[in-house]
Formats: sequence, structure tokens, C-alpha cells
Amino acid sequence: MGEWGVIAALTGRMPAGPLTSVGIGDDAAVVRAPSGSVVAAVDLLLEGRHFRRDWSSAYDIGVKAAARSLADIAAMGAVNTALLVALAVPGELPASWPLALADGLAAEAARAGAGIVGGDTARADSVLLSVTALGDLAGRRPVLRSGGRPGDVIAVAGPLGRSAAGLALLSAGVTATSDALAGLVAAHRRPSPPYEAGPEAAGLGATAMIDVSDGLLADLGHIADASAVALDLDRASLDAGGPLGEAAAVLKETIYSSRTVPADSPPPTALDWVLTGGEDHSLVATFPATVQLPSRWRVIGQVRAVDYVNVASVGVTIDGAAHAGPGGWQHFR
Amino acid sequence: MGEWGVIAALTGRMPAGPLTSVGIGDDAAVVRAPSGSVVAAVDLLLEGRHFRRDWSSAYDIGVKAAARSLADIAAMGAVNTALLVALAVPGELPASWPLALADGLAAEAARAGAGIVGGDTARADSVLLSVTALGDLAGRRPVLRSGGRPGDVIAVAGPLGRSAAGLALLSAGVTATSDALAGLVAAHRRPSPPYEAGPEAAGLGATAMIDVSDGLLADLGHIADASAVALDLDRASLDAGGPLGEAAAVLKETIYSSRTVPADSPPPTALDWVLTGGEDHSLVATFPATVQLPSRWRVIGQVRAVDYVNVASVGVTIDGAAHAGPGGWQHFR
Repeated sequence: MGEWGVIAALTGRMPAGPLTSVGIGDDAAVVRAPSGSVVAAVDLLLEGRHFRRDWSSAYDIGVKAAARSLADIAAMGAVNTALLVALAVPGELPASWPLALADGLAAEAARAGAGIVGGDTARADSVLLSVTALGDLAGRRPVLRSGGRPGDVIAVAGPLGRSAAGLALLSAGVTATSDALAGLVAAHRRPSPPYEAGPEAAGLGATAMIDVSDGLLADLGHIADASAVALDLDRASLDAGGPLGEAAAVLKETIYSSRTVPADSPPPTALDWVLTGGEDHSLVATFPATVQLPSRWRVIGQVRAVDYVNVASVGVTIDGAAHAGPGGWQHFR
Repeated sequence: MGEWGVIAALTGRMPAGPLTSVGIGDDAAVVRAPSGSVVAAVDLLLEGRHFRRDWSSAYDIGVKAAARSLADIAAMGAVNTALLVALAVPGELPASWPLALADGLAAEAARAGAGIVGGDTARADSVLLSVTALGDLAGRRPVLRSGGRPGDVIAVAGPLGRSAAGLALLSAGVTATSDALAGLVAAHRRPSPPYEAGPEAAGLGATAMIDVSDGLLADLGHIADASAVALDLDRASLDAGGPLGEAAAVLKETIYSSRTVPADSPPPTALDWVLTGGEDHSLVATFPATVQLPSRWRVIGQVRAVDYVNVASVGVTIDGAAHAGPGGWQHFR
């Protein structure tokens, strides 16, 4: 299969969506924007930095790349309509690799209701992907990071810390010996954001929303900054047991029984993953306290006015106190 | 300046546009789409493949990256509204480099009427850019590649072959000793597509349109295929003299007087550049013969019915005959 054949095959595996007027194959795509505006976000994924080909299959990487951008659209309260994918792969990869990646992209796009409408391809020394997602607000106002108000509750839809725990298991070379641990590794490889919770939150009157891509503390920090409020989490509401606790125990044992991890680095705790693990792409939002939240939204804290006299209360706190542990993952660290 | 400082500075250099409702800084941007649909295209630019940092400044590369995607939107007959930019740069580059690149992106986006509304950044071993452009059709139908009809004329807006000639001069290490040659090098570094000619063509009733990114023959080949027509160019209408002729003469002399180019490769001709040079991002379109074309549209040929009995007439021909020279540049060659 020649290179043009690969492109043709890729195109065949990336179906248009219900709002696609002109799909892949012309200079540009045309996508319906029924509410008269379009929501758009782009994310870059680089091999070695955002994924490893020996830890994730091509299909997994396609799912993950799509999920990352699709979650951004959902976090505005919008419904996903379309993806555009720029992809570069090394020439030595078999044609089956980009095709499996396309299948992963297409499957996750379809789960969010989006078609794949455009793309570009090139050769590079390592795999790189740039995924642009487009969405429609269906007449709603976008839910920004800046609308949180004192008195609101903080609620999350989707899991926290599972992707980070799965990554920690992969990094330590731990074989997942139980369904619970295997589920964490799968959550790292194929995140499954609750896309439909985004428009749902907008409809319920969410005042601010973000997707958890860099860690709960870091992403809530963006809401705190943009909204000029303080956010206080209830420690008891943060579920850091179950599979996360099991993974932490296994990793602790690994650290003390082998040399695969430096013995002087403290073992991660389940709470660390919940607070600082990104890439689950769950949605966290603030709502007026009077809103009746559907069961998938779990209240985890409250929005408070900033108390500039008490510096420890500024930003994101836990049970009213600053968090002493790691503060979340940052790009460009 | 730390990495977050660079991102903040980048953001400050990428202004929103007139149709930007929510710009850089939230999970996603919101851009108005007044006609109820959005036109979207993405292009990938990789260092070493699409540009060289020793031949182009950061500002030039920004202009070029923006132009490439903006031209795709114009080629649909749409007005550009927004760009989203994913950018990775090596850590050793000074902060001034991505900032100058942002200035180039912003300047070219502004020339097309678009704002820069979103982005993502990362580190990589070499520079890579993915630019997504969004546009609005203002109520017009998109001009596809598939609408060319026998009897239409073929017309082009913008120059042909200038970027390729400039690249040939740079590749051969020829110093531009005249304004004409310097103009070709500048055309390679900073293409200047005639964006407004795209919506103009749509308004005039263009039946098919494409931007010349891979070469006139290759790109007209896409129209011929999609429209199931034959396209015949008038050799006399293709301006292969002037600066292009001067560049060809200088290069021929260089080839025979030095070893910088293998002596057995034939020197390029000006016509080769006109027919196969990409990256000028001029617009080529087919129009009903009755349309009065504004002066920037130069008629260069006619659309004919496919004559399946005469294989030499199929595809794109020149004065009725198949072109014997190189057939245009292809990605993934």
C-alpha cells in the first residue's frame, strides 16, 4: 500500500458526522453550526511526551487524542460536531498503525457524536497528532472558567486519578494482577470522558466548568483565578480508596522490594492521584447550591469568597487548609 | 522568562478577531458563524520538511503557516474568521523565536480578517506547527472541486511559480542580486495569497476552486478528477518570463559553473515552476464563460468534456497535449 493508498484508507475510516455538510476531500470542510457560533479547541499530542507506543496501541492513542479535544468542547457546555486531525508518522511504521489510530479516533469521535471532517498528513521521526474539535452550543451560553460565585457547589462528573494511577503502574513496570488494576491501566490508555455531562451542566445552570486534564487542583486553580473566588474541597468526598488504594499499596510494595523506582522517592498515594492526576478528562463545574444535580455529578466542595487577609484560604484548599502535597502537573515544567 | 511567561506573551501577541466571542484562555474558543455553518481546514508544518530555520525567520514561518490554512478557507469561497495554532518548539530556542513566529501568524491572520482564538504548546526536538483555520460562507454555497463543467474557463488569481523559484534560489545557495530575484525569495518565505479573491469568486459564480499548494498541474488535477472533466491550459497565457526567467537563467549558469548542484540534473525552467511550483497559494477556479472576471483573475485555459477515446486529452493538458515535464509536487513522495 503506497502513501496515497494509506491516505485514502485513512479517509475511509474517518466517517463524517450528522452535521457534516462537506467532509474530507476538498480544500476545507463545511460543518453546520446551528446556533450561529462554533466552539473550537486544539490539542497537540507528541510521542514520548503524551504517549508511548510501547505502552499504548495505535487504537488507544487515537482514542486518547480524540478524547482530549472532545472533552474541551464538552467543558464549554457544547455538543461536539467535528474533528480535524493532523497526523505525522515515521515512514517505517506499517500502514496498519495509522489505520488503527484512525479507528480509535473515529470510535471516540462517534461516542461524542462528532464526525471527522478534515486532516493533513506528513512524515516525521516520531508520531505527532494535532486534533481540533468543533462543537455547537445549541443556543446555550458557553460555560466559562470565570463564572464561579461564592456559595456555589463544586461537582465532578467522571472519575479522578484513574489515568494517573494507571500510568504509575505502567511506569513502574507493575503487571496488573487484578481487574481493578487492569481497569486503571485501561483508563490511562483509553480515557472515557462523560461528554454528555457538559451540555447537561450548561442546561442545569453551571456557572463555571473545566475538564480535568492537568489535575483537579491545577484545573480548579484555573477556575479560582478566572472567577476570583476560593475553592474548598471536602476531603471526605474525594474517593481515594478502591482501585486507587489497591494500586498505591502495590506500588509501595514494588518500591520497597525492587530497584525499579528510586528508594528515596516517596510512594504515591491514592489521594495524590485524585488531586493531581490529569488525563481522565472528567468535568468539574460549579453550580448554584439550589440546583438539583443528577447522580453522575458528585459534590466535592464549595465556592467561597476570597479572604485576602488569610492567605492560606486563597486558591484551592482542602477542608479549609492549603494542600501540602504536589500541586498538579504542568506543561512546560 | 519562564515557560508560562512565554505562553502568556504568546497569547498577548495573538489578538482575537471581529467574530471572536471567546478567545484564548478557556477550554475552547467560541467564534461566531453567522451563516449557520463553519468552514474548517487544518495544515501541518514541520521543520526540515516544510521550512528551514536557516532559510526563513520565525516571523516568515508564522506568515507561511497561517497563509497555508487561510488559503484553504478562501478556496471554498469563505471569509476567514479564526485560527487555532498548535506549536511545539525545542527548549533551547530563545523566547524571542516563538514570539516572532506569533507576530507572523497574527499579521497574516489579520490580513485575512481572522483572529487567533486558541492554541496548544509543547516542547519537541524540532519546530512543528499545526494551524486550523475557520471561516464563514456569508450565505454562499461552498465552492467545491467537483463543480467544473465543460465550457467553463479556468482562471487564476495570484502568482504562479514564484515560491518555487525562490526556493530553488535558496537551495542552490544563489545570492539574490536583483530586486526581481529578491522578490522570489521573499515570495517563498512569505506567501501572500489573495484571500479576498475566494469569496469574490464564489460571488461571481465560480463552479470549482482550489488553492495552488502542490503545483498548478497537481491541483488542477484534483479539479479534473472531482469534476470528471478535462482541463486544457493555454501555454501563451502562462507568464513564465520576467523574474522567473531571470531566476532560471541564473540557476542554469550556477549549475554549469559550480558543483553545488549535480551537473546531470537538468536546470529548472520558468515554465516548470509555473506548472509545478506549490506554496504560492494562489487561487485557481473555473467560471462559466459568460462571467465578466475582475482584472485580478487571469484566464489560463478552458474546461472540456473528457474524451475517453483520446487518452492524451484526459486530465490536465497544455495546448491540447499531455505535459511531458514533471507533474507537480506530492506529499508522501
